[in-house]
Amino acid sequence: MIEQKGILFILSGPSGVGKGTVRKSLFEKDTELRYSISTTTRPIREGEKEGVDYFYRSKNEFEEMIENNQLLEYAQYVGNYYGTPRQYVEETLDAGKDVFLEIEVQGALQVKENFPEGVFIFLSPPSLEELKNRIVSRGTETESLVMNRLKAAKEEIELMDAYDYVVVNDQVSRAVDKVQAIVKSEHCKRERVASQYKKLLEVSES
Amino acid sequence: MIEQKGILFILSGPSGVGKGTVRKSLFEKDTELRYSISTTTRPIREGEKEGVDYFYRSKNEFEEMIENNQLLEYAQYVGNYYGTPRQYVEETLDAGKDVFLEIEVQGALQVKENFPEGVFIFLSPPSLEELKNRIVSRGTETESLVMNRLKAAKEEIELMDAYDYVVVNDQVSRAVDKVQAIVKSEHCKRERVASQYKKLLEVSES
Repeated sequence: MIEQKGILFILSGPSGVGKGTVRKSLFEKDTELRYSISTTTRPIREGEKEGVDYFYRSKNEFEEMIENNQLLEYAQYVGNYYGTPRQYVEETLDAGKDVFLEIEVQGALQVKENFPEGVFIFLSPPSLEELKNRIVSRGTETESLVMNRLKAAKEEIELMDAYDYVVVNDQVSRAVDKVQAIVKSEHCKRERVASQYKKLLEVSES
Repeated sequence: MIEQKGILFILSGPSGVGKGTVRKSLFEKDTELRYSISTTTRPIREGEKEGVDYFYRSKNEFEEMIENNQLLEYAQYVGNYYGTPRQYVEETLDAGKDVFLEIEVQGALQVKENFPEGVFIFLSPPSLEELKNRIVSRGTETESLVMNRLKAAKEEIELMDAYDYVVVNDQVSRAVDKVQAIVKSEHCKRERVASQYKKLLEVSES
């Protein structure tokens, strides 16, 4: 069979759009993808676990990682740092496994600078109305934070053009289905596989 | 929902690779795709039906269609003409339906000139050995024709670079699965949908 380097997939989109839900549902179905767990300085929420949802670090620890170039991307969002440890991603891709990032929009743009060959998927709300409802119903934000998030979301939607795909999160199962199709089809992209197929077909000739 | 023009998908690859089998199996599962039936001057084979497998035309009739520019592509292959009626494809895409072509490699390259926005899928044999076995076991060709076909296949594999995707036909169900993933993911391509999403998200704001 064809030996391929892994592909880096980045799922991103406005805060509140449901990135985490889509990612969790995707990983229940797909055991081939490797999830890159982010590092953050935001406080742990009820039900979350260290090393499962995030690696929770102090501000000092995080800034040391920045200084030592150990993060593939990082961003400040609503006063907290979020980042992606670089080493895990690179080693996993080299081992031929796909890596899946679920990150904020600003972080995704940084990854794009470091990894233009990554596959960038924008998770879009069906409407801004719906996005507002989701942020409010989460119940973890004050009203002014909700307005901040909505304003940020509008700006982030403008950044859609930096992405390769847009998946609307109208229904989680449908969004997951589309992300899975993107993963599968990207492995069939001619520029990834043509030279290997040609070699394979020559070899079998002799 | 997002209103999209249909997408033209072209499945092609060397003769004997199993394009017809993959296409038939795909259409048993997917009722959204519209299959563009080709026109040919080759004799009807046992089990085939006019207007189902091909439109069978005389050489004179076919050359009249060429002259009147009624074909999106046409090719001569092993002494026979094969072509794609232009009108059906264009009308169907305008109506928002995807069109699926299953054609020879030379025809696919012509379609690419007329429709660079089409999505070109190369169906590849797992090996040349396997391709030879398939052509021989079909039992409809003389030995010298088999050799001609194999030689043509080698040349056609060199043309893989004109395609967007390569799908290996190691197992029909797996190949169909990949083609379905390509169809689904192409509908999520940012350049196809971003402007519509942005409009949708603005509208819902007011």
